[in-house]
Amino acid sequence: MQHSIEDIEYAEYLFDKFYGIGSSENGGVTRLGYTEVEDEMHDTFKLLGDEKGYGNYTDEVGNTYLYSKDCDMDEEYYLIASHLDSVIEGGRYDGVAGIITGLLIMNWAKRDGLSLPIRIGAMRCEESSNFGRSTIGSGLITGEVYKHDIGDAVNKQGESLREVFKRKGYSLQPPRIQGVKEYIELHIEQGKVLEEYGDRIGIVQTIAGPRRFNIHIHGNAEHSGATPMGMRTDALCAAAEIILEIEEIGKSESIYQSVATVGTVSNKPNALNVIPGEVQLGVDMRGIDPASLDRMEARLKAVCKRVCEKRKLKYFREKTSDIPPIGMSMELQQKLLRAAKELKIPHRSMISGAGHDAMSFAHICDTAMVFIPCAKGISHNKKEFTTIESICDGAQVIYQYLKEEAR
Amino acid sequence: MQHSIEDIEYAEYLFDKFYGIGSSENGGVTRLGYTEVEDEMHDTFKLLGDEKGYGNYTDEVGNTYLYSKDCDMDEEYYLIASHLDSVIEGGRYDGVAGIITGLLIMNWAKRDGLSLPIRIGAMRCEESSNFGRSTIGSGLITGEVYKHDIGDAVNKQGESLREVFKRKGYSLQPPRIQGVKEYIELHIEQGKVLEEYGDRIGIVQTIAGPRRFNIHIHGNAEHSGATPMGMRTDALCAAAEIILEIEEIGKSESIYQSVATVGTVSNKPNALNVIPGEVQLGVDMRGIDPASLDRMEARLKAVCKRVCEKRKLKYFREKTSDIPPIGMSMELQQKLLRAAKELKIPHRSMISGAGHDAMSFAHICDTAMVFIPCAKGISHNKKEFTTIESICDGAQVIYQYLKEEAR
Repeated sequence: MQHSIEDIEYAEYLFDKFYGIGSSENGGVTRLGYTEVEDEMHDTFKLLGDEKGYGNYTDEVGNTYLYSKDCDMDEEYYLIASHLDSVIEGGRYDGVAGIITGLLIMNWAKRDGLSLPIRIGAMRCEESSNFGRSTIGSGLITGEVYKHDIGDAVNKQGESLREVFKRKGYSLQPPRIQGVKEYIELHIEQGKVLEEYGDRIGIVQTIAGPRRFNIHIHGNAEHSGATPMGMRTDALCAAAEIILEIEEIGKSESIYQSVATVGTVSNKPNALNVIPGEVQLGVDMRGIDPASLDRMEARLKAVCKRVCEKRKLKYFREKTSDIPPIGMSMELQQKLLRAAKELKIPHRSMISGAGHDAMSFAHICDTAMVFIPCAKGISHNKKEFTTIESICDGAQVIYQYLKEEAR
Repeated sequence: MQHSIEDIEYAEYLFDKFYGIGSSENGGVTRLGYTEVEDEMHDTFKLLGDEKGYGNYTDEVGNTYLYSKDCDMDEEYYLIASHLDSVIEGGRYDGVAGIITGLLIMNWAKRDGLSLPIRIGAMRCEESSNFGRSTIGSGLITGEVYKHDIGDAVNKQGESLREVFKRKGYSLQPPRIQGVKEYIELHIEQGKVLEEYGDRIGIVQTIAGPRRFNIHIHGNAEHSGATPMGMRTDALCAAAEIILEIEEIGKSESIYQSVATVGTVSNKPNALNVIPGEVQLGVDMRGIDPASLDRMEARLKAVCKRVCEKRKLKYFREKTSDIPPIGMSMELQQKLLRAAKELKIPHRSMISGAGHDAMSFAHICDTAMVFIPCAKGISHNKKEFTTIESICDGAQVIYQYLKEEAR
């Protein structure tokens, strides 16, 4: 659809305000959750609210909210939210697109005198890149994702979440967020489905559930020159076999829309003249079909056992995350699809392979997600790109729905 | 053979003097070349010389030498040498055993009034663990190993060898060492051959030559949840294939006593929710048969090409080291074998899979190496162990030979 010059300019203005924060020499951004760079993103978010005369507040875990000062704070509200942190060397649209969407909608609602209470939320530490845990901000305040204490999770600097929270005055046991009527999040797709089908809007049916594992492999660190091939227990060779088997597992389950990835490797002692004695792998498995996830987990278990027994290595496997696939509200999906149709924007129903803050909120209220295309499906990378028009498209679909609700 | 209480006590005393330097909580030692910890090792070496009234001097690259003050400094000398640095979390015998040997022999020579000029040498930075280059100290002063400038080699702290040398007042183009008649080095075997055969002494025939490579693999860092398996270019999966192929190459060439190892891995961005986009592998290939080394290198080249083309990834391969197998002096081997026989110590001729400073000296003078067993062949590890008696055995073999020479 066609957007007004004012909307495009305002969205560009918002995007530019965040642009430079956490920029690296390589051209990407590093805005890790619960760091000063993320704080700067949240401060900018508050300033953007100040410019429009919105009020703001911060909850017990550092999430930031903007609200219109003439709304009744006791009334249930529509929360338009996403996050402001990024992966290491990530892109500038992941999360930020959803925040810009909230600011666009709030602006339109104010302009039109819409009689619906809306708040914009910026969730903390959605990415797992800093603490090895995702959706920390939204997970804690919705009270379902993190039922156990995650204070021992350690960041890239070796500091525990407990220490960080203590320093910042946050709480690991915050009260559950109150008054959210519906949660709606716009996000870039981070995949190529919309682009391949030529659609402009995706309404999410289900968010794939990540199951995550650490695999610790212990061999013998021996001299690489003086240890004959037949006398080695090389932890890295075992890890390599496991990496390839995990790729196979993902491929064979891809018909069920599952994926399996080894994202992290730690190799010790990591010296050219020593056979690797200790390797740790970080595994991320995702899918929307619980049976497929179960099969992948069972096969992972079997693979570790088989490879390490064959190679006479010790190992242990720990599950660090197990979030089931989460369905979005059927009613909200229907209403958002109708809104896209009314606006004549090409759209489709689809799944989300990536996790989002919406997963946390789905436990406590009606929740929906709107996807917009991103170029070549690239995300978590400096080449990540979407257009300002795409963000406006998505924001218009959500706003169209809200206007219907206000009738 | 039986050793005197005085010899055992003196050797133990020497070992204890070095024991605590660079000790880590894990029980190993980290004495990286050209660090302050290595400096401390050399200072201790000089103090041990002072105690016996030896003179000392340091050459242009930081190697330290002890000599008897009543010898003619213009005369050609027998250099009994090894090194005092270690790998990360290494053992306490690798290198140090050869230094203790020198001090034992010097002590006996002084006691017996042996009419042979002997010096003890402690070479700098024999291990490649700090700068990715081995035998830096001995390689520079013998002038053959490092014909090209290695000043750009960078240590674990990101400092170049050039900067380190400038700071310490050393020279990357030192004059060639003068006056060395023969170079003899005792070292722990770092393998299991002596132990398996029940021999106490190994006389080295050939030192395997290391060929080393860095392999850089470039794929696409994309979202691990939203990128279907069929659309990925995962650099780590390609690396895993290459690691296993390198293991296969080493196994198939093991009949020629060759080995092949991937010792180092760098994975980027190394985050749980991002498909690895960039991986670097450090490869170490060794053998005593140049034809076998050539075959291994050719296969490595083919494997990188095949795997990366199949997976549509970019890569490049750089050779960082190419040291040919080095034969020890035939005459010296014979004489040392005869000495072991005279002392009735079970002995054998063998190859060295590991590289040593002796490789540098073999270019400029008659050179020999004496191996002693180490428990289970474990080296480059905190569990590395040999007995003081074994060190005395090896020292006695060398001293027996020197006494014959003095006749």
